[in-house]
Amino acid sequence: MKILIKDCYLCDLLRDSGVTTGDVAVEGNRLLKVGGEGELPLGWKPERVIDGKDHLCLPGLINCHTHAAMTLLRSYADDLPLMHWLEKKIWPMEARLTGDDVYWGTLLAIVEMIESGTTTFSDMYFFTDRVAEAVEVSGVRACLSRGLIGIGDSAEQGLEESRELLEKWQGAADGRISIWLGPHAPYTCPPDFLDKVLTLAQDYRAGIHVHVAETKDEIEQIAREYGKTPVAYLSERGVFRFPVLAAHCVYLTEEDIETLAAAGAAVAHNPESNMKLASGIAPIPELLAAGVTVGIGTDGASSNNNLDMFEEMRTAALLHKVNKGDPQVLPASQVLSMATRDGARALRLDDLGLLQPGYKADLILVNLNEAHLHPRHNPVAHMVYSARGGDVETVIIDGRIVMEGRKILTIDKERVLAEVEERARRLLS
Amino acid sequence: MKILIKDCYLCDLLRDSGVTTGDVAVEGNRLLKVGGEGELPLGWKPERVIDGKDHLCLPGLINCHTHAAMTLLRSYADDLPLMHWLEKKIWPMEARLTGDDVYWGTLLAIVEMIESGTTTFSDMYFFTDRVAEAVEVSGVRACLSRGLIGIGDSAEQGLEESRELLEKWQGAADGRISIWLGPHAPYTCPPDFLDKVLTLAQDYRAGIHVHVAETKDEIEQIAREYGKTPVAYLSERGVFRFPVLAAHCVYLTEEDIETLAAAGAAVAHNPESNMKLASGIAPIPELLAAGVTVGIGTDGASSNNNLDMFEEMRTAALLHKVNKGDPQVLPASQVLSMATRDGARALRLDDLGLLQPGYKADLILVNLNEAHLHPRHNPVAHMVYSARGGDVETVIIDGRIVMEGRKILTIDKERVLAEVEERARRLLS
Repeated sequence: MKILIKDCYLCDLLRDSGVTTGDVAVEGNRLLKVGGEGELPLGWKPERVIDGKDHLCLPGLINCHTHAAMTLLRSYADDLPLMHWLEKKIWPMEARLTGDDVYWGTLLAIVEMIESGTTTFSDMYFFTDRVAEAVEVSGVRACLSRGLIGIGDSAEQGLEESRELLEKWQGAADGRISIWLGPHAPYTCPPDFLDKVLTLAQDYRAGIHVHVAETKDEIEQIAREYGKTPVAYLSERGVFRFPVLAAHCVYLTEEDIETLAAAGAAVAHNPESNMKLASGIAPIPELLAAGVTVGIGTDGASSNNNLDMFEEMRTAALLHKVNKGDPQVLPASQVLSMATRDGARALRLDDLGLLQPGYKADLILVNLNEAHLHPRHNPVAHMVYSARGGDVETVIIDGRIVMEGRKILTIDKERVLAEVEERARRLLS
Repeated sequence: MKILIKDCYLCDLLRDSGVTTGDVAVEGNRLLKVGGEGELPLGWKPERVIDGKDHLCLPGLINCHTHAAMTLLRSYADDLPLMHWLEKKIWPMEARLTGDDVYWGTLLAIVEMIESGTTTFSDMYFFTDRVAEAVEVSGVRACLSRGLIGIGDSAEQGLEESRELLEKWQGAADGRISIWLGPHAPYTCPPDFLDKVLTLAQDYRAGIHVHVAETKDEIEQIAREYGKTPVAYLSERGVFRFPVLAAHCVYLTEEDIETLAAAGAAVAHNPESNMKLASGIAPIPELLAAGVTVGIGTDGASSNNNLDMFEEMRTAALLHKVNKGDPQVLPASQVLSMATRDGARALRLDDLGLLQPGYKADLILVNLNEAHLHPRHNPVAHMVYSARGGDVETVIIDGRIVMEGRKILTIDKERVLAEVEERARRLLS
C-alpha cells in the first residue's frame, strides 16, 4: 500500500538537529520519502493520505525485553519480597497457564503495546508458538525466544521447541518474526546445557536473549558456583561469539562492561522492573560510554506493571540523573534513540528504528494537541519527559496501518479484554 | 446539584479493604452516600445520573507542590546543570512573564491537571491574584502562595501582595481557594524577613509553604551562614509554630525528621523533579516511619515535565523501593493515600481526600476498560503501577462536574492552547 502522511513534525535522531515539518511517504513495507530525503517516482500516487498536522512522526518504539503474556498476572502480586513473589505467587500461577492463556495474554500485551506506540518487542516466555501466532495475526513485529531452563525435566523439551520455532517461524509473517534462543539466565543454565544452546545457535545462526546479572543474589550464586561474574561465566562458555541481547545487567564489573563492549553485545535496560523489584540500578551511563548498544525494555507486566515505553523512557532518563547526581546524564534525544534506533540495533534489525528512506515503515504519529505537550518548545523533550502512551494516535507497522484514531484495526480488542478477564478469574479459582 | 454515580468500583483507603462496587451520591458540594455508607433522604432524586460501570471512583488527586504557570517553560530547557538552568534559562524567562502570561500558563496547568485527575493543587508563584482568577473560573481547588524572596528590592512588595491575597482571596470561590504564605526557601529568606512573614501568618492564621533542603548546595549554604540545617534554621525562627508545608526535604538529618514530626509539619515529596534536576532522593520511608504527613507534588512543569499525578505516584513507589533495596517499601495503597488523603491533610483540608459521606465532593472516575488496566486483579495497584492520567474519564470538584467524557466543561481548552503557544513564542523572541 502507498501511504502519504502530510505535514507532520519530524525529528532526525541521527543528527539531533531539532524538529522540522514535512511529509512521509510509505510504499509496501518501506519508507520511500521522509521530509526532504528520498524521491517519489514520477506520478507516484498514494492510496491513503493521512493528515499529520499537529502530530510528531517517530519511528515505532522498540521494547527490547518483555514477557508479554505476563499481562495475565498484572497486579496479581505487588509489593512483595522478590523470592516470595516468585516462588509463592508467580511460578505457581505460571505453572497453570495453558497455551490458550499465553495466546490471549500476549494479544492483550500487543494491544497495549500498539496503543502506546510500540511496534516491535523482544519476548521470552513459553508456548512460544502461540506467542508467534498472536504476533502474526496482530501485525506487530517481534523477536521471540522460548525461555530455556537447563535444570530439571523440561530442559530438552525447551531445546526441541526452540528448534521447532527456528524451523517454522524464523522470518515468518513477512519477516516480522525473528526467533532467538532464550537461555534464561546463568543461574538456570549450567555449562553443558549452555553448550547445547550454542550448538543450536550455531546451526541456525540465531541470537541469544538472556537475563544477566539482574540481582545481587545472582552475583553471589554464580560466584559461589563458578568463582566468577555472570558475564565472565557466559563469556567463557563462548556465548558472546553469537549476537547477544543481555537483559538487565544491573550488577557489572568494569571488566564485564569491557567484555560486553568488545563482543558487540547489546543490553536491554529495564528501569521500572529493576526499581519495583528493588533489584538495583544498572550502570547505563558506563555501558554507553563503553560503546555498548543499550535498548530499553519494560520487562513483564507483573513487575512494571504496564508496557508503556514512553513511561519507561522517562524513568530511564530520570533515574540515571539522580543516581549519578548529574542532570546532564541521558538527555532526551539519547533516550529516544535508545527506545528506537538503538533498540533496533540491539535486536539486530538493521533497517529499522530510523525515519530514513529504505528503512522499514514502522512509525507512529503522536498527537501534540494535548495540554501536557504545550507549548512546543521542544517536541523531542516532550516525548521523553511529558508524553504518555495514550498520546499515540496512529501506528503503522511494516507499511500497514494497525491503529488509526486510537482504534486498533487488526485485533478485536473487546474480545481480548473479555478473554483475559475470564482467564484471570479461572487462574485465581 | 444532586448527582448519582451508579455501579462504580470503590476502594476504601482508610481500611485498605480492597475494592467493592456501589453507588456514590453527591449533594451540593458534599458526598452524601458512598457504597454502603451514608443515607439518602427519603424521596431523594438525583438531577444527574452517571453510569459508573467499569470505572473506579477515587478521591480527586492532590498535587501538593507546583508552580502552575511554569507550563509556559515546559521543555524550554532540559538536561542542563542546575545553576546554568536556573540562571541562564529559567530566571531570565520568568523576569519577562506578565500577569496575563501567568493567568494563561496557570489555566494550561489546570487543564492538564483536571485531565489527569488532579482536583486540588498547592501553588507557589507570582502574579498570584491572576493564579487565583484562573482557579476561580476553572472550578479547581487550590492553596495559593505568593513566592516570597527576602533579599532584594521586591521583598516588601511580596509581603504586601500576600496581605492583599489573604484579604481578598482567602476562602474565595465558595471556599475552593486557600491562601498560604510562601517564603521561598531558607537561603532566600533571612531571619528578619522570616520574622515579618510569621507576623503576617499570625495576623491571618495562615499556613507556611516553603522549599526546604532541596539540594546539597542549600545545605552547605545554610551551614555556612547559620551553622545549622535548613530545618533547624526555620525551627529556631519559630516557623513550625504555624502549619507548615515543606516541599522537597531531600536532605534531612534524623534530628530534622524529629523536628518535622514533633511540629506536625507536612512534607510535599516531588520525586520526578528531584530526579530530573539530580537533586537527590528524599528520605520518605523515614519521614513516614516518624509519623510525618507526606503528600506528593509534581513541582513545576519545567522540571518534570508534566503535572500527571498518576506518574508521580508510580515514580514515588518505584524510586524508594530501589533506593532502599526493598520491594515492600511504599506499597500501592500507601502511595495512593499520599496522593489523596495525606495530601489533603498536608494542605490542612480536613474534609477532603476520602470517599466518605460528609467529605467534599472532589472525585474522579477512572476508566478501567483499557488494555493496560486488565485483568482486574487489583484496581488499587493498577492506579499506582499502571494507570495514566489519560485514563481519567470524569472529574467532579466541589460537587460540580468539571470534566465528562474527557471533555473539560469549565475552560475553553482550544483557546488556552492557542494563547499559551503564542505567549511561548513571544517569550522566546
